[in-house]
Amino acid sequence: MRYSRALIPTLREMPSEGEVVSHQLMLRAGYIRQVARGIYNYLPLGWRVLQKISQIVREELDRVGCQEVQMPCVIPAELWEQSGRWQAYGKELLRLKDRHDRAYCFGPTHEEIITPLVASVVHSYKELPHNLYQIQTKFRDEIRPRFGLMRGREFLMKDAYSFHATDADLDREYEVMCAAYQRIFARCGLSSCVVEAATGSIGGRSSHEVMVLAETGESEVASCACGYAANVEMAEKRRKETVTAARDAASIPAVRKVHTPGLGGVDDVVGLLGLTAAEMIKTLIYLRDGGLVVALIPGDTLLNEHKLQTAIGADFVTLADEAAIRQLTGAAVGFAGPIGLPRVVEGIGAVTVVADHAIAQMRDAATGANETDYHVCHVVPGRDFVPDQYADLQSVVAGDPCPRCSDGRLAIMRGIEVGHLFKLGTKYAKPFAAQFLDQDGKAVTMTMGCYGLGIGRTAAAAIEQHHDDRGMLWPLPIAPYHVALLLLNGKNPEHRAYADRAYETLTTAGVEVLYDDRQERAGVKFADAELIGIPYQVVIGGKGVETGSLELKERCTGDARMMSLQDVTTTIHETLAHFRRGGPDVT
Amino acid sequence: MRYSRALIPTLREMPSEGEVVSHQLMLRAGYIRQVARGIYNYLPLGWRVLQKISQIVREELDRVGCQEVQMPCVIPAELWEQSGRWQAYGKELLRLKDRHDRAYCFGPTHEEIITPLVASVVHSYKELPHNLYQIQTKFRDEIRPRFGLMRGREFLMKDAYSFHATDADLDREYEVMCAAYQRIFARCGLSSCVVEAATGSIGGRSSHEVMVLAETGESEVASCACGYAANVEMAEKRRKETVTAARDAASIPAVRKVHTPGLGGVDDVVGLLGLTAAEMIKTLIYLRDGGLVVALIPGDTLLNEHKLQTAIGADFVTLADEAAIRQLTGAAVGFAGPIGLPRVVEGIGAVTVVADHAIAQMRDAATGANETDYHVCHVVPGRDFVPDQYADLQSVVAGDPCPRCSDGRLAIMRGIEVGHLFKLGTKYAKPFAAQFLDQDGKAVTMTMGCYGLGIGRTAAAAIEQHHDDRGMLWPLPIAPYHVALLLLNGKNPEHRAYADRAYETLTTAGVEVLYDDRQERAGVKFADAELIGIPYQVVIGGKGVETGSLELKERCTGDARMMSLQDVTTTIHETLAHFRRGGPDVT
Repeated sequence: MRYSRALIPTLREMPSEGEVVSHQLMLRAGYIRQVARGIYNYLPLGWRVLQKISQIVREELDRVGCQEVQMPCVIPAELWEQSGRWQAYGKELLRLKDRHDRAYCFGPTHEEIITPLVASVVHSYKELPHNLYQIQTKFRDEIRPRFGLMRGREFLMKDAYSFHATDADLDREYEVMCAAYQRIFARCGLSSCVVEAATGSIGGRSSHEVMVLAETGESEVASCACGYAANVEMAEKRRKETVTAARDAASIPAVRKVHTPGLGGVDDVVGLLGLTAAEMIKTLIYLRDGGLVVALIPGDTLLNEHKLQTAIGADFVTLADEAAIRQLTGAAVGFAGPIGLPRVVEGIGAVTVVADHAIAQMRDAATGANETDYHVCHVVPGRDFVPDQYADLQSVVAGDPCPRCSDGRLAIMRGIEVGHLFKLGTKYAKPFAAQFLDQDGKAVTMTMGCYGLGIGRTAAAAIEQHHDDRGMLWPLPIAPYHVALLLLNGKNPEHRAYADRAYETLTTAGVEVLYDDRQERAGVKFADAELIGIPYQVVIGGKGVETGSLELKERCTGDARMMSLQDVTTTIHETLAHFRRGGPDVT
Repeated sequence: MRYSRALIPTLREMPSEGEVVSHQLMLRAGYIRQVARGIYNYLPLGWRVLQKISQIVREELDRVGCQEVQMPCVIPAELWEQSGRWQAYGKELLRLKDRHDRAYCFGPTHEEIITPLVASVVHSYKELPHNLYQIQTKFRDEIRPRFGLMRGREFLMKDAYSFHATDADLDREYEVMCAAYQRIFARCGLSSCVVEAATGSIGGRSSHEVMVLAETGESEVASCACGYAANVEMAEKRRKETVTAARDAASIPAVRKVHTPGLGGVDDVVGLLGLTAAEMIKTLIYLRDGGLVVALIPGDTLLNEHKLQTAIGADFVTLADEAAIRQLTGAAVGFAGPIGLPRVVEGIGAVTVVADHAIAQMRDAATGANETDYHVCHVVPGRDFVPDQYADLQSVVAGDPCPRCSDGRLAIMRGIEVGHLFKLGTKYAKPFAAQFLDQDGKAVTMTMGCYGLGIGRTAAAAIEQHHDDRGMLWPLPIAPYHVALLLLNGKNPEHRAYADRAYETLTTAGVEVLYDDRQERAGVKFADAELIGIPYQVVIGGKGVETGSLELKERCTGDARMMSLQDVTTTIHETLAHFRRGGPDVT
């Protein structure tokens, strides 16, 4: 492509609307333009990157036997009613009506289409398994779309759905897909990892996320050298060995109230009580659908709201406001405790008390007294209060012991979720009666997996992982062009003729060249080439023109070598082939 | 692809819902399944065809310097209000609201997005021209979606938009795009032609359609050996040479009323009057937005409603009902005439009288008397009535003289509109202030072209043009697979091993093979291969296995030849290369 004819509206200044580096750079380098909040135009460079990622996804999925299909964007409401998600999905589902006033939604995910389709055409165990995927524009009406392509409302996604006769076959396919995902991101030149994850609104019995690692990622991943990796949302806290209590509960004095005026926080009160934070029971009060939840954790740990929500099976949990806390405890914020709490609060609902597993092992603890400016000491869980439920409620932190291996310690990394795999089981197959006849002629419900991959988000994650202060640093396989051919002095007819020939030769040899033939200063050409992140630069300046040798400069290392046109072609093709074979980890 | 693992749900019986042969065959051969009226799932075979067509479109547009982009499906209403089409587009525009109650539509066409985008990033004549295209899912809420992919509501379309500094440059690009379209359809193996067309709701100053010729097409095309071709909707009727009237109007007697009881039609009344149909003035009455139109044509010709609508600049015209005709003429249907008609009808609106050009040359004609059971004779247009307007109102018919060359005669063919090109001029550039600075630094409005191509409709048109009573007959470049490899006796391990090897060898050589390895009877395999229209069959039956020779059979001709695997590969690749070079016309 000749730059003079290309639509690449780069900006000299960093745009104010960009919130993260990938968003800023995509705007500045002329990859995208916003149409409305969370809705973008993909300009030629941006769309080339998305198509390259899509093509790698296609090749790797086809290789493992998946088949590409295309389902509609506009989906009849009846199908979503049949799965129960028309109500459950909430406001993120973009609903609409046609000219006949029939209700539809703009599909945010397609279990409701693929399941009845497969149910209608597959009838025998002999016709299973199938894994069907599509690469399609989705819409989720996020309340806070942000970070450009990282969390848009309209976005490009690959979604795959697999159908199986047995759970064992689903497990097998799930492993195949995990491996395919790892190959996909390796082929894109991205450093990624597969982590255990929560199932969320898609549901099912287990799930993993694929993270592209980047400092700027929204997600936290806990990982151990042994191979364990999980989203911090659900990474297991290793339970302390149960030691025989040093002191029998019977030896501990009865609960005693202590005046702790104005000392509502754990850190504030420990000094006065002469305790460590680990000896305090932190009492956190949450609103949930139809009631309140009281969460108890050791004073030196962090509550993981996601674990709390999962433990009690709530649709949501959100910290209670002061009024609700007062209604429950009769005290100001900071003085709540588990002893003597009512189990119903009028106008709010039932009260559930959930304690972290570590609470069960505490002896002689202190906690709030449910009375303003008072705490209680000598509290013994089980003696002085009994929670409704024990669960893992703590967030893991760096240095925590690994929950899987005997001596590993967890590290915490940041990442960007680019893929999500679910074992759905029969969650959708049941309502859509997706059944097959087994070898004995008996009707059996299929079991399903589903596998998402954000195409635009992968592009954004690639930038978050690969950029510097001058611009993007695309890995070669997903770069919009392989080589930026920079004609520095376009007024020299000899140089121009030489550059034209180089452009023709490279292009014919299958190298994708962005040929900067513009009437611009050399500095502008270098700055644009670096900003838009083309992996290699070939400069047509002075000396090379006479000798027939060119300077090939690598954008990410700055390394430059003189070589022939033929060697440029060979270098590009060899590097591409290297990535196609699965590539190295190129972080 | 192994057929045993592929999702190809063929049906033994022709499905009842199919309305045209392409729709029936796509359902029966497992290419598509309906989700809702005019909304389809594309199954693996169907989606492969659409992707192949898309890829040919991409290659040919990239070759002429177009750049691919992607615009959103969900478009803010403000943009459509700015162009004036939010009101004008009517119920085909699928409107929706987001969670914040802001209005959007699902884009049926994207002038409203691309124009402000280009306006915001292009500022100088040096940055023009640009031609930007996308291949995207569109939605038009058709009142009567029908014929499968031929007229769906959700459909895949390529839309391109070009921006120019001058009309001359637009004219140049328009020619380039016409040529690119012809190459695209030739490369798809389709017989097509470019015809003059009406501009319709997109607007602009001129437009052409690209038709794939097929007996079953919805459109009629008039064409001449000289190269003239036009949609019958707007094909020009050649005006008769103006001969000096044989008789001066003054020599014709005054208008005389004749009793013609019950003879309301031209054919009925000519006998009684002793005239030919050509001597009658046929008077047709239409309702339009805000009034009535009276159209006058010679009694032996056909009115072209599209021309009538265009001539008077109406949003629609529709034949008036009996009540309106009575109100206007005071007579029963069949006795209307142009003499003495009122120019306003209470409760309906103004009355416009439009006469075909041929009417001006009539002398001594007959027409209705605006009185039940009466006609009038000796009518002289201009003397006895004066139309508000003369225009070309006739439909051309086969054998009419060509409007362009001196001695050609028009033939009428049927076709399917698969592409549409428009010279938009400044219709969208003006409301979106798409301006550039010219060489003198003066702000000038850009001039635009737009170019649509229906991807799904092209697939349907290909079937309409290429099928037989056993199924589809795909041209090789857009067939879902090149070769159907039929293993007739899968229980013979030698045959199976041979077929497996042939499958590997062909696939590795870049031949796309659908390998029928199912445990099915030979008859089922042949029937399915023919139904789904794979262009070549390689049969692994008896003799070839020993000799290393295979039978390659061409689906469309039935020709079969024994050859080596290497020759199969060569045949496929040579045929594909032939099409890539622009191909022959393969009708």
